[in-house]
Amino acid sequence: MLNAFKQKIADRSAIVGIVGLGYVGLPLSLRFVEAGYRVVGFDIDSEKVRKISAGETYIEHIPSAAVKDATAHGLSATTQFSEISMVDAIILCVPTPLNKYREPDLSFVLNTVEAIQPYLRKGQLLSLESTTYPGTTEEELRPRMEAAGLAIGQDAFLVFSPEREDPGNPNFSTRTIPKVVGGQTEACLHAGLALYGAVIDKVVPVSSTQAAEMTKLLENIHRAVNIGLVNELKIVCDKMGIDIHEVIDAAATKPFGFVAYHPGPGIGGHCIPIDPFYLTWKAREYGVHTRFIELAGEVNGSMPDFVMGKIVQALNERCKSVRKSRVLILGISYKKNIDDMRESPSVQLMEKLREAGAIVSYSDPHVPVFPKMREHRFDLSSQPVDQVSLKNYDCVVLATDHDRFDYELVLRNSQLVIDTRGKYRNPAPNLVRA
Amino acid sequence: MLNAFKQKIADRSAIVGIVGLGYVGLPLSLRFVEAGYRVVGFDIDSEKVRKISAGETYIEHIPSAAVKDATAHGLSATTQFSEISMVDAIILCVPTPLNKYREPDLSFVLNTVEAIQPYLRKGQLLSLESTTYPGTTEEELRPRMEAAGLAIGQDAFLVFSPEREDPGNPNFSTRTIPKVVGGQTEACLHAGLALYGAVIDKVVPVSSTQAAEMTKLLENIHRAVNIGLVNELKIVCDKMGIDIHEVIDAAATKPFGFVAYHPGPGIGGHCIPIDPFYLTWKAREYGVHTRFIELAGEVNGSMPDFVMGKIVQALNERCKSVRKSRVLILGISYKKNIDDMRESPSVQLMEKLREAGAIVSYSDPHVPVFPKMREHRFDLSSQPVDQVSLKNYDCVVLATDHDRFDYELVLRNSQLVIDTRGKYRNPAPNLVRA
Repeated sequence: MLNAFKQKIADRSAIVGIVGLGYVGLPLSLRFVEAGYRVVGFDIDSEKVRKISAGETYIEHIPSAAVKDATAHGLSATTQFSEISMVDAIILCVPTPLNKYREPDLSFVLNTVEAIQPYLRKGQLLSLESTTYPGTTEEELRPRMEAAGLAIGQDAFLVFSPEREDPGNPNFSTRTIPKVVGGQTEACLHAGLALYGAVIDKVVPVSSTQAAEMTKLLENIHRAVNIGLVNELKIVCDKMGIDIHEVIDAAATKPFGFVAYHPGPGIGGHCIPIDPFYLTWKAREYGVHTRFIELAGEVNGSMPDFVMGKIVQALNERCKSVRKSRVLILGISYKKNIDDMRESPSVQLMEKLREAGAIVSYSDPHVPVFPKMREHRFDLSSQPVDQVSLKNYDCVVLATDHDRFDYELVLRNSQLVIDTRGKYRNPAPNLVRA
Repeated sequence: MLNAFKQKIADRSAIVGIVGLGYVGLPLSLRFVEAGYRVVGFDIDSEKVRKISAGETYIEHIPSAAVKDATAHGLSATTQFSEISMVDAIILCVPTPLNKYREPDLSFVLNTVEAIQPYLRKGQLLSLESTTYPGTTEEELRPRMEAAGLAIGQDAFLVFSPEREDPGNPNFSTRTIPKVVGGQTEACLHAGLALYGAVIDKVVPVSSTQAAEMTKLLENIHRAVNIGLVNELKIVCDKMGIDIHEVIDAAATKPFGFVAYHPGPGIGGHCIPIDPFYLTWKAREYGVHTRFIELAGEVNGSMPDFVMGKIVQALNERCKSVRKSRVLILGISYKKNIDDMRESPSVQLMEKLREAGAIVSYSDPHVPVFPKMREHRFDLSSQPVDQVSLKNYDCVVLATDHDRFDYELVLRNSQLVIDTRGKYRNPAPNLVRA
């Protein structure tokens, strides 16, 4: 069975099914097509399926031309999970959020697996790419595949291979980012290595699906904790009258043993604020605590309040209340130069400002209209930033440091600028660091 | 005054006084001599002064030939602080430990400054290199220089420039590690840049002595926290049956956003376990907490207990008590391939084992005889590691992973190996990870 699978991969006759066509699934689909495979994309969102079928994009950094080209060379999309029976490899790229008690919400993964279960067949490989706690593949996916009558490692293969997409990173693409793979059995591992080895320059085998699951968590925990640390030190430096950004730059001149992470108004994106708590939850089962994760969550989660405090203080010094003040948020995506709004701290800031009675506007060249979000609603569209418009705001908050902003223009024409990113290095009477 | 100072640096007529001839002061002295300066080394330890005068080394990685050569080209050493009056630049490289309440102990710095105070004169530059909290230079050194009748920035110059020595690092030397400099005034900064620019390839000016002080702390806090994080995750992975070392290696294949740090039996050396608490102490003055530092201290400080637990458990499984068991500690310096014993977790392990009644031995090719230490006393010398000797120990604890050990020999011939460094990657019946 393994040899047959490997043969289909080698001769490009394998059909690859990718479930979940978001920031991970869509670029992965394009890469498989580019490498010569027929790809069937699955999504419960019929709008995504319609757009792909029409050769249109819905992700800023992936051009429509790339989608169109892929559809002409083997990419199709469907909402019909029954078509799972025709694919040889199934790759799950669905979200793994937290519920409101900050516990893992595996419903997207498990609903998907249960939806495809009737269509699973011998010879298939199932790969989970969604970030999750160690043990998910073995404890949740394996029994569901076995319930479909498949002997794992013999009839079918099961692997975990964490996605490492970094939207907006100009130096790396799906193909050039090494990919970690762990299998439920030795045969599973080899099937996984064959699949990903066909499209990724370097695949990295690990000894178990648990090790692969933990690898992705470690990467994101590392980031969450390092950002938490500099955020805490930002508060300390602020009190001491030291510029944390200058200090970070100076420390970064040490050629070993130090890596720069940068403070900000909080953390966003679908990974860093969420993934670490998957480990926290699982660790409880073993009676152990993940204290660095908790602390990072606390510190990072409190940063919008720190920024709010700075806004209130700066307005107050100018004899203004937040209520009725016109505040412009510069940049609302969660990091620079992309359009991804998930968990963006800018939105938390906007909520807090609105709650305090401010008249909130935003400007973001990557987000022309404030999108529908599960927990946030703003009827706003991106405002122009120019000499005239800037003067109308009581306060301009630099929240996301997109390259497209004209920072000199902003500082020159604003009554008050709150800089949460250390973009301005020289003091100015209308500039406040936050 | 600044131009005169810069001229003396430029024409190599400046005499450089270096106070504290340890791991930082000695290599720095050699570098100034190499660059053509006359150097007077000061130390209260007459043994160090005697050895330098005799052209002998007392630091493993600095050969006697280098010391001898330096004495032939302008290096002298003395215990007489009155000779401070003849030098143009004074560089303080003295220890900044913690007292037993984990508070900064500046006594070495302040005693030195008070000892040299009568001999300070116009035209001199004073540079502090010892790691310390932000504000030390301004609040402690400046008034003491002013009390000597010197106007800072006019009569004399005062800078902070943190040492970045990394003993045993084969890739970088004193000369090639960029050096951060902050001055009390603009003239002070320029004097400091002139001094260090003459011997260091790249000097990095920052806006204040506080920023320079904070830079060094950030570097070491970053390390302490990152090591704390992987130590905590080691405990979590241990419970889950996942190999943390495999996970770290796999995560390190991510080409951005992740840097590998490695867990161990605790942390040692004169920097990482100590420096961060300098900030903790100073932060209290501003009413802020340094929670990441506290947590890292707690986790890292608990690692010898974690290792002890593993030793007790492994011996118990073999129906042995720690009491009367013969235990060999492999490696007692605080990190590999050097002889530095300061704050070594190996020593803490030895104390704990002795206290529990074990018969403790050690082997360390870098430490032939257990040295005199302020708080630890062992009448031991390094034991041979061979086929016969290894069999005599109930337990061998790999604590410091020197390259010179024959790891295969150790595993093949030991009854029980406790590996605290992840040196052994394959399971073996006599191998326990800790």
